[in-house]
Amino acid sequence: MNKKNSVTIRKQDLKPIAEGAAFLGTGGGGDPYIGRLVAEALFDRYGEPEMIEASELDDDANVYVSAMMGAPTVLVEKIIGGPELDLSISALEKYTGKKADAILPVEMGGCNSMLPLAVAAMRGLPVINADGMGRAFPELQMVTFNVHGINASPMSMANEHGESVIINARDSKETENKARQLIINMGGSAAISCYPMNGAQVKQTAITGTLSLAMGIGQSLAQGRKENVAVKHLVEFLRSSEYYQHARVLFSGKIVNLKSSIEGGFTKGECFIQGLGGQASQQMSVEFQNENLVARLNGQLVAMVPDLICLVDSDTGTPITTESLKYGQRLSVIAASVPPIMRSDKALSVFGPRAFGYDFDFTAVEKL
Amino acid sequence: MNKKNSVTIRKQDLKPIAEGAAFLGTGGGGDPYIGRLVAEALFDRYGEPEMIEASELDDDANVYVSAMMGAPTVLVEKIIGGPELDLSISALEKYTGKKADAILPVEMGGCNSMLPLAVAAMRGLPVINADGMGRAFPELQMVTFNVHGINASPMSMANEHGESVIINARDSKETENKARQLIINMGGSAAISCYPMNGAQVKQTAITGTLSLAMGIGQSLAQGRKENVAVKHLVEFLRSSEYYQHARVLFSGKIVNLKSSIEGGFTKGECFIQGLGGQASQQMSVEFQNENLVARLNGQLVAMVPDLICLVDSDTGTPITTESLKYGQRLSVIAASVPPIMRSDKALSVFGPRAFGYDFDFTAVEKL
Repeated sequence: MNKKNSVTIRKQDLKPIAEGAAFLGTGGGGDPYIGRLVAEALFDRYGEPEMIEASELDDDANVYVSAMMGAPTVLVEKIIGGPELDLSISALEKYTGKKADAILPVEMGGCNSMLPLAVAAMRGLPVINADGMGRAFPELQMVTFNVHGINASPMSMANEHGESVIINARDSKETENKARQLIINMGGSAAISCYPMNGAQVKQTAITGTLSLAMGIGQSLAQGRKENVAVKHLVEFLRSSEYYQHARVLFSGKIVNLKSSIEGGFTKGECFIQGLGGQASQQMSVEFQNENLVARLNGQLVAMVPDLICLVDSDTGTPITTESLKYGQRLSVIAASVPPIMRSDKALSVFGPRAFGYDFDFTAVEKL
Repeated sequence: MNKKNSVTIRKQDLKPIAEGAAFLGTGGGGDPYIGRLVAEALFDRYGEPEMIEASELDDDANVYVSAMMGAPTVLVEKIIGGPELDLSISALEKYTGKKADAILPVEMGGCNSMLPLAVAAMRGLPVINADGMGRAFPELQMVTFNVHGINASPMSMANEHGESVIINARDSKETENKARQLIINMGGSAAISCYPMNGAQVKQTAITGTLSLAMGIGQSLAQGRKENVAVKHLVEFLRSSEYYQHARVLFSGKIVNLKSSIEGGFTKGECFIQGLGGQASQQMSVEFQNENLVARLNGQLVAMVPDLICLVDSDTGTPITTESLKYGQRLSVIAASVPPIMRSDKALSVFGPRAFGYDFDFTAVEKL
């Protein structure tokens, strides 16, 4: 590994990364506070890890994804700890016979941006500044790695009882199906590793620069808060970034109705936001399955997956994850276009609206 | 391995073994005809395997269990083939790093007596004349291996798509729970290997002589049929055997009502048998969960798990598996006491009536 361009991820970087990733997570990917606690504890114990760019990977480097899987609602009550994170990697290493050279996030989300950093610290390995979504998605096959034909199997799952499972399924969707059936029995959530890749495959398939993007979003929020213009400042930052030039505030209001339940290992539901002041007669609904999938204004579609639909506190800009939604919350709905790699026909077949059971095709947020 | 006492299992032995095991399977363990077809095909291709006694195993021999798991109802329509049987063993070999030296049946049943013979033939390995139940049970933890503290994990599952899963759970019951959650996704049934043991452990924990006992039962049935006294001849044979001296016919009649469904990977239900002639006013009910669990005569308990409750055709003595029960069938219900090792307090806590959700303790069939 050529580490000359590596940067150390400091303990104080965790807060902006977690918050920025929670924004990109569009409601999913777990609670940023919980994820940060885990990473901070492991940084204290094992030291701060290095972050490298995907381009610095040797082609034959062994790259292991680290994440948690399960309903974020469960994660709030049952925190993922170091032993099961470590076991998820070591179980897969044992199965493949290849030692991990670097750790890769599978998605950006409050928790799933932190756990790869935590494992990298434990292992003394670099974490890669990239992921497979540039956001969060509810299912394992919904990543660019799979869009490019890489199988999520072999995959490992590990829990706090020292239990582990290795799944070797024929494709990524079948891997997801089997893992999802097991997740309740594993305790509602589990530490996982999947999509074992070499460096060349990561360079071909990952969305790059997303950990540093998350940090930039988090820093932008912190800066904006100082001047009480957090949401405005955030949208300006997004528009200036490589990926999110079409970012805008879709709607602001307060939650007047909320349906949420845990179904098949997912947090599923819909929240209804009533406008305030001049918008009091208007209502936005946002449907979610761990992540926010579809936003409608007065019944009309205004944004849809895979474009980002992010709920943030109207005053502080703090991203609100699905499991933290509450009646009466005042929030703003921000939409942003995703990178072109996420909007290809092949990508949309994997994580476009129809992949979530909707009966309409994708229309870009900037055209709605 | 000292093979001086080994005997070759001939293709023509498969029919009596399968039929005898189907009897011991008390309704579960799969269809004997289906199991036999698989074994015959693999004997033709790979040759006939040797059967050895558990006492002949080297203490450090690596013994692998082979079986199918899932609702027998599914197995009738989706036959288990050689490739997934082989994959279930090789996946576990790869995980443990130990090559199999011998194959062990986990239970006696129409199908699960045949598959170990089939795998032994494929691998050129001996099969051991023993198992972990001396009958069939619906769940993985319900074996003498577990009663003696051996974990079912690590366990492998494999299906016809070349998919495999390795489960490493904290105990046998958790292994069962995880495997059962996966079984539907694996296709309703799967080839499995579990309870990897060394020779010393097999000698301490297995019920010995059960493959040859099954063959004896099958041969006794064939002999009795020639004289049209199949059921009587069978009961006499059982009474003369080491294990089943309390065997008797509990009831004869025809099925007048049958409830059966697939629930959570099991074939569950109850059949009602009305008496004929002088017994026309009497009714026996038999509840099953893959295997027959409880028999009641006019509402009064007359036999219960783990004692054997076997339904056989009244004329031919042919054992009738749960998934083959049909309205109008004329059958006899035979009960038999199980070996003392199966009736210890520890054993009853694992597979006595309460382990199946009944609210009464075990009473031996000879006392009812």
